[in-house]
Amino acid sequence: MAVRYELIKTCKQTGARIGKLHTPHGTIDTPIFMPVGTLATVKTMSPEELKEMEAQIILSNTYHLFLRPGHELVEEAGGLHSFMNWDRAILTDSGGFQVFSLSNLREIDEHGVSFRSHLNGEKLFISPEKAMEIQNALGADIIMAFDECAPYPAEPDYVRPSMERTTRWAERCLKAHKNPDKQALFGIVQGGMYRELREQSARELTSLDFPGYAIGGLSVGEPHSLMYEVLDYTVPLLPDNKPRYLMGVGSPDALIEGAMRGIDMFDCVLPTRIARNGTCMTSHGRLVIRNAKYARDFTPLDHHCDCYTCRNFTRAYIRHLLKCDEIFGIRLTTYHNLYFLLNLMKQVRQAIMEDRLLDFRDEFFAQYGLNDSRGF
Amino acid sequence: MAVRYELIKTCKQTGARIGKLHTPHGTIDTPIFMPVGTLATVKTMSPEELKEMEAQIILSNTYHLFLRPGHELVEEAGGLHSFMNWDRAILTDSGGFQVFSLSNLREIDEHGVSFRSHLNGEKLFISPEKAMEIQNALGADIIMAFDECAPYPAEPDYVRPSMERTTRWAERCLKAHKNPDKQALFGIVQGGMYRELREQSARELTSLDFPGYAIGGLSVGEPHSLMYEVLDYTVPLLPDNKPRYLMGVGSPDALIEGAMRGIDMFDCVLPTRIARNGTCMTSHGRLVIRNAKYARDFTPLDHHCDCYTCRNFTRAYIRHLLKCDEIFGIRLTTYHNLYFLLNLMKQVRQAIMEDRLLDFRDEFFAQYGLNDSRGF
Repeated sequence: MAVRYELIKTCKQTGARIGKLHTPHGTIDTPIFMPVGTLATVKTMSPEELKEMEAQIILSNTYHLFLRPGHELVEEAGGLHSFMNWDRAILTDSGGFQVFSLSNLREIDEHGVSFRSHLNGEKLFISPEKAMEIQNALGADIIMAFDECAPYPAEPDYVRPSMERTTRWAERCLKAHKNPDKQALFGIVQGGMYRELREQSARELTSLDFPGYAIGGLSVGEPHSLMYEVLDYTVPLLPDNKPRYLMGVGSPDALIEGAMRGIDMFDCVLPTRIARNGTCMTSHGRLVIRNAKYARDFTPLDHHCDCYTCRNFTRAYIRHLLKCDEIFGIRLTTYHNLYFLLNLMKQVRQAIMEDRLLDFRDEFFAQYGLNDSRGF
Repeated sequence: MAVRYELIKTCKQTGARIGKLHTPHGTIDTPIFMPVGTLATVKTMSPEELKEMEAQIILSNTYHLFLRPGHELVEEAGGLHSFMNWDRAILTDSGGFQVFSLSNLREIDEHGVSFRSHLNGEKLFISPEKAMEIQNALGADIIMAFDECAPYPAEPDYVRPSMERTTRWAERCLKAHKNPDKQALFGIVQGGMYRELREQSARELTSLDFPGYAIGGLSVGEPHSLMYEVLDYTVPLLPDNKPRYLMGVGSPDALIEGAMRGIDMFDCVLPTRIARNGTCMTSHGRLVIRNAKYARDFTPLDHHCDCYTCRNFTRAYIRHLLKCDEIFGIRLTTYHNLYFLLNLMKQVRQAIMEDRLLDFRDEFFAQYGLNDSRGF
C-alpha cells in the first residue's frame, strides 16, 4: 500500500477531521494545503524554502511535464523527487484538467483525448493508459485517474456521459497502473453541480476501492456557496478511512469551509499566481503591494505573520522590488502567501484538535473582512 | 575614519597583496569581488544566500536608486542597509557611469550633468554635490566621487578636459560629503588609455588624500591587454596604505590579472547578467546550459564546485528550468556564478598567501581554456 490514511480525530462541531497520511516520502498532517509546482518547481521557490515553511507535499502537473521536459527524461533522472531534489511527498494530477483548459483543438472519445500542445501546436494524445504511463514514470507518491473536468455551467445532458466516461477511465487507470505498491492512485468524483450525478459517481468510484478520492470539477466558476453545497452531499458518500482531496481550491475561506466538510487535501495556484502580481494574503485580507499607499510603509506585509518575508522586509521594500520587476520581490510575496496558507491549515488542525473550528472560522472571517464566504 | 585598510601581505611574485578592509559593517578580506545589487537587490538573490556564498560587500547603484525608489525614501527607511536588510558592507557608485551610459539627452558642464531618466524621460540633474547628497542619504560604507567615465576609443583632446573636470568634481565631492566618519569617499582615477593623463589624474587625486582610490574608465571595450597595461603604470602611483578598486571588471581572467597588479576590489554585473541568460562560469570555461547536449546530463554544472547549485541540482534540471523560463533556474545559475567568482578570489588570496599566484593563474587559465587572456 503506497499510502495509508490514519484518522486521528473527528471534529465535534463539524465534519472536519485530523489525520495522518503516510506516504513513501513522509507523513502528512491533514487537512493540508499542497503548493503547486507545475513544471517540477514551485515557481520562484527552492526546496529548502518549501521545507522551511513546512510544506509536506507538493503537486506537480502531468500535462506540463509530459510536454517539457518529457516523462522519459524525468524517469531517467530517477523520477520527479530526484529530478527536482525534493525528498518529501509529491502528488501529480492526471493531465485531464490541463488538456481541457490549456490545449487547443482537443477531440475527446472513449479512447482518450487528442489535442494540440499549447506551446508548439504538436498533436498529442492522452488516454487513461497514457496518463498512467506518464505518472508511473514521474514517480509521485500519489497519482490521479485521468478524468474530464466538465465546464461550468453545463447541462446534465453533457455532465452525465462525461462523468460516466470518467468512471470507465478510472477503471482503465486502475488496470494500467504499474506501480500500486509505491504510488497511490486516487479516483476523481465528477458530476458537476448535480446531486444525482455526484452520488452516482461517488458510488461507482468507491466500489472500485481506490486508496483515496478527489472531488473534481469544483472551483470552476460557480459561487462558493454552490461548491459547499456539492461538498455537503458528496463528502459523506466517501469512505472515512480514505483521504479526500478537493482539487484546485486555495482561497482561505474555501480551505476552512472545505476542511469543515471533511476535506483532507487541497491544492491551488492561487497563492503563487497572485503573489507574482503583488497581491498578498494577510490576516486582514488581501493587500495589493503595488498600491502607492505602501511606498513609505516600513512595516511588515502582515503584522500577525512570522514568516521569513514578514520577519525581514517591509512593505516599502517589497513594493519597490515589485515596481522594479525585481525577482526577489516575487520570491518574498510567494513565500509569504504559501506560508500564509500552510499556516492557516496548521491553525485549522489546531482548532479541530481543540473542538473550536467554528469559532476559529468566525474569527478568521471577521478579521479577514469576509462576510459572504466569497473569498478572494 | 569610516574605513581602514590593513595590509597583511605582499606577493613575492607579483604586485598582488592581501589586506583587510575594516568598515562599519564588517571586515572585508581583499582582494575581493563585490556582487552588484543595482536596485537594492542582487538580482534574484536573498541576503542570506549572499552570506552563505560569503559575499562580504555588495555594490548598489546611486543612479538607479535616485530614480527608484528615491534616496529620501531609502533614508527614511534607515538607509540602504536597513531598507534591503543587508548588515554587511555596501559600496555605492556615484551615478556617473550610468548617467553617461543609460540616460538620454545628457548635457555636461562644469556644474554637473543634466539628463533625462531612461525610465520616463523626466529631466534630472546630478552634480558632485547632488551625488554626495544622494550617497549620504543611502548611507553605504564606501561612496564614490562623481566622475565622467570617458568612452573608448576617445582622443586625448576629449579625455584630458574630462579627466581634469573629474578631478575638480572630486574636490567638490570631498567638500560636500557630510558623513566622512561613517562613509569613506573614494576618488576615481580617470585618463582613458593615456599614460600621461592617468599619471596626472593619479597625482592630483592622491594629493587630495582620499581614504581609497578607484580606477575608472577601464573595461569599456578596450582589449584586456590594454587594460592591463594601464593598470601596470597606474596602480604603482596609488598609495600602498589605501584600498584600490578596479571598477566594472568581473571576468575571471581580469580578476586574476587585476589582483596580480595590486587591485583589492572589483565589481561587475557580468556573473549575474550572463546567469540570467543561462551562461555559467565553470572551472572548464563557460557553459551555455540551454544547449541541447545538456538535456540528459545528470551531472552538476561544475564538477569542481561545491556551491548550493552544484551540490543539489543537475545540468538537465537547470536546463529544463531555463527553457521553461522558470525563475528558480536563474536563481540557481546566479548563485553558481557569484559563488564561482567569490570562490575564485578566495583561491587568489590563498595563492598570494602561499606565494604561488603565478602558478595558480597558469593552472586556472589552462583549465578554463584561456590562452589569450581575452576572458569571457
